[in-house]
Amino acid sequence: MIGISAAAQAMTSSAIREILKITQRPEVISFAGGLPAPELFPVAEIKAATDRVLTDQPTAALQYSTTEGHLPLRSWIADRSAITADHVQITSGSQQGLDLLGRVLIDPGDVILVESPTYLGALQAFSPYQPEFAEMITDDDGIVPEALDDQLRTHPAKLLYTVPTFQNPTGRTLSAARREQLLEVTRRHDVVIIEDGPYNELRFRGERLPTLYELALADSGDPDEVNVIMLGTFSKVLAPGLRDAWVQGPRPVIEKLVLAKQAADLHSPTLNQMIIAELLDDVLPRQIKIISAAYGERAQVMIEAVRRQFPDGVDCTDPDGGMFCWVTLPAGSGLDTAAMLAQAVDRNVAYVPGEPFFAGPGGANTLRLSYVTSTAEQIRSGVAALAAVIGNQLSAGSAAAPRLR
Amino acid sequence: MIGISAAAQAMTSSAIREILKITQRPEVISFAGGLPAPELFPVAEIKAATDRVLTDQPTAALQYSTTEGHLPLRSWIADRSAITADHVQITSGSQQGLDLLGRVLIDPGDVILVESPTYLGALQAFSPYQPEFAEMITDDDGIVPEALDDQLRTHPAKLLYTVPTFQNPTGRTLSAARREQLLEVTRRHDVVIIEDGPYNELRFRGERLPTLYELALADSGDPDEVNVIMLGTFSKVLAPGLRDAWVQGPRPVIEKLVLAKQAADLHSPTLNQMIIAELLDDVLPRQIKIISAAYGERAQVMIEAVRRQFPDGVDCTDPDGGMFCWVTLPAGSGLDTAAMLAQAVDRNVAYVPGEPFFAGPGGANTLRLSYVTSTAEQIRSGVAALAAVIGNQLSAGSAAAPRLR
Repeated sequence: MIGISAAAQAMTSSAIREILKITQRPEVISFAGGLPAPELFPVAEIKAATDRVLTDQPTAALQYSTTEGHLPLRSWIADRSAITADHVQITSGSQQGLDLLGRVLIDPGDVILVESPTYLGALQAFSPYQPEFAEMITDDDGIVPEALDDQLRTHPAKLLYTVPTFQNPTGRTLSAARREQLLEVTRRHDVVIIEDGPYNELRFRGERLPTLYELALADSGDPDEVNVIMLGTFSKVLAPGLRDAWVQGPRPVIEKLVLAKQAADLHSPTLNQMIIAELLDDVLPRQIKIISAAYGERAQVMIEAVRRQFPDGVDCTDPDGGMFCWVTLPAGSGLDTAAMLAQAVDRNVAYVPGEPFFAGPGGANTLRLSYVTSTAEQIRSGVAALAAVIGNQLSAGSAAAPRLR
Repeated sequence: MIGISAAAQAMTSSAIREILKITQRPEVISFAGGLPAPELFPVAEIKAATDRVLTDQPTAALQYSTTEGHLPLRSWIADRSAITADHVQITSGSQQGLDLLGRVLIDPGDVILVESPTYLGALQAFSPYQPEFAEMITDDDGIVPEALDDQLRTHPAKLLYTVPTFQNPTGRTLSAARREQLLEVTRRHDVVIIEDGPYNELRFRGERLPTLYELALADSGDPDEVNVIMLGTFSKVLAPGLRDAWVQGPRPVIEKLVLAKQAADLHSPTLNQMIIAELLDDVLPRQIKIISAAYGERAQVMIEAVRRQFPDGVDCTDPDGGMFCWVTLPAGSGLDTAAMLAQAVDRNVAYVPGEPFFAGPGGANTLRLSYVTSTAEQIRSGVAALAAVIGNQLSAGSAAAPRLR
């Protein structure tokens, strides 16, 4: 009866979130989530911080506030990059940052370059603004700058979206050399980079790399002249339920983000921002160490189990940080990980099929595994179950394949 | 350097919010805010509720959660209307409800009927979706159904946005008889009503009227067949800084709202929703009584002062609830309340000029006053100062007017 807009008619439910609903049965070992490990949440510290905020500044915490966000929080974020608070907009999770950037930067038909695969939530956030997605060639070191340069010569683009560090879904990290090259290529072709960095702090191996934003700022010296807009979040290092993240970038972009957010939800909850501001100096650095160490141990268990148990020809990334690794089944096997999920769930193990992470065709033979919310024992038995499913499917596939010709 | 989208180029700063920034000087008596009275926030109760939530359910409060919102909160909202939780979507303030409804319902060029004047925030929320706004004829009892019927015969519309109870900005309430008439007219012309009810509970005089949603549901008996979508919020009855509100309506609309919200910000903060869920049974009804009584006293002081001190020919509404009254200067005076604001602020009193509340032309001779964040003494001296400004302007205007011809 009620007329739905064309944009809303095009919206379909997220595969990931629908699967998450299925796999909440306690007997299922879920590698499907994008959720941080809840047993590491700093509950006592959040409780104490909340009590302080509501004791000392109840009116500020509970009243309407500015769209830009809580100034002490913005200033802390700004100080880390040697910029000022007016280069920072607080958002309700990075998902909102992506949505608002879509509003502010995308006209219908604008070309956005994305990794292949890319973060599904970004595709969902940008799609309502009707861009054209163009996939970039990537390898184990992330975006291949030379290939991008070639691509841009014949196919110009306005924006480039990337998760350069411990990417979702692959766990891959753009190498140091390629970061400089990527900046050079995008500047030459007048492309603006949207750098999404939710996992930046969660390194468990190797040395920290500078963000694209940091490199661009070091080059230009003027935060209003960088061609990088960066998203950061407290979801993965404190707690996602507080919904606090930010966008930092040139002021002309931030000023429009403020107006877009004003129309979208006025401002993010003040109480939540003040709680986080209380945790920045002591709790946050401690949490980063705790979480990185725990995730590193769990990643190691998963990668070892995968190497030991997955059939030959199945590839898996080996991340230096973050929450995910990425499995590729033999390309010629004809296996579809979306169809295979039912068999996996029958054996009480869940993952996310890879296809929805691709803006273009392909990816049916890929899947994403999260290692962060399972114990070592669960990881081992989940990987064993999944190895059996893949093994069965590969045998069945080889047997079935000739019949399909 | 960075290309801004056409939609973002069209965004301009909200007059209201810019003025709010100016008038935060402590010596200014501000009737400009749309903020509830902070001294009435139930701080101790919120603190106790937060402590309970973080003690009993820390993981649920701090982890990612469902887009639809916290089920106990949705169920409580649903029970009040004898509907089910799947007719309810939690939003981050009603501003987000308006934005998401815009996404889900508006195609470019769709006609939305609005009151004259209407709530500025709704115009801001809907505008990015490029509707055409059409003003309805209103009087002291709200929308005039006969006039609307005539208008719709020649000018069809898809949506009708209304704040029928203690409207922002006028404080007016749609009469009981007109509520039934409005439903009849809109059903006959196939128009969907968006009923915004942030002040519904804040009645300080007269009897409660049923909402349009309640009437439509009583008529149809099927919550999926009503032509009314209602927005409610905890901002005005508990605390706006928590940013918790909801949309209730037919499931096909709610299902699309869920997808739109998933792309926009995944979900509203769980902690905040759980805090509010703790306050529903005891604290909320008590707060509604406390706030309504306090606002009623302040409204009375303001209306009395306005009647005693404003020059002849200046009209002011006399609301039965809510937060605002609406002042109309003599139409022929040529006075512009936006221009007059500087004189008012010089005398340490602030208001919101009326013009931005009109989707169409006109309204330069109107202004909005909020009575809820000032003491009786402040209200009296603020009104006196404003009366002097208006008086001066009217004399100057009469003197100046001939020279302008």
